[in-house]
Amino acid sequence: MLTTGAAASALLANASSNTENARQLVHHVFFWLKNPDSKEDLNKLLEGINSLRKINTLRLCKVGMPAGTEQRDVVDGSYQVSLLTIFDDVKGHDAYQVDPVHTAFVKNYAHLWSKVVVYDSMDI
Amino acid sequence: MLTTGAAASALLANASSNTENARQLVHHVFFWLKNPDSKEDLNKLLEGINSLRKINTLRLCKVGMPAGTEQRDVVDGSYQVSLLTIFDDVKGHDAYQVDPVHTAFVKNYAHLWSKVVVYDSMDI
Repeated sequence: MLTTGAAASALLANASSNTENARQLVHHVFFWLKNPDSKEDLNKLLEGINSLRKINTLRLCKVGMPAGTEQRDVVDGSYQVSLLTIFDDVKGHDAYQVDPVHTAFVKNYAHLWSKVVVYDSMDI
Repeated sequence: MLTTGAAASALLANASSNTENARQLVHHVFFWLKNPDSKEDLNKLLEGINSLRKINTLRLCKVGMPAGTEQRDVVDGSYQVSLLTIFDDVKGHDAYQVDPVHTAFVKNYAHLWSKVVVYDSMDI
């Protein structure tokens, strides 16, 4: 995924350009697939998620899957895909939510997931 | 919190120094306080969490609280504190877990929380 790698690199550079005490918004989304064992559905969802990287209020965008860390009671590794995004502020997040790229993503890929959990945190 | 601000800035710089396609580990922890309305307990927990910033395998460390984004069914805003950390790899995460600063944090502050949920994601 060279193109998404390049995009991710650019986003990391943007994330670091914030001033020292800038408070950012962390928007972390976890997806549970309807068919958790379907490699095809997983790849389809990743295709959709990767389309979001072009939204220009993003300062960081990381797509991941459960890591091979120690199994502990407190660790929830039951999801299939993690989408971690960072914005400069609530306004940047709100613009992302209504961006046509994002609304098209929800419209075209929501049939793939059974559950989504979102955590929105503002830096303190 | 000027000192933690400076530390955060240094960590952001480290995060951006990764090579283009480096796969990192995102370790995101959510804390629910036993006394969610206690400002004193919140500040105590934040004091403990901020002590973790000095652990040297951290590449990003962001401490937050539920943001003022739109209330939606999929958004879980019931926790009190979010601790988002990023490491270069599982090894960096594992070193953090056993770092004396981290074990002291768990020992000295665990009485404050009723629940912790952790999501560990490896970049894909």
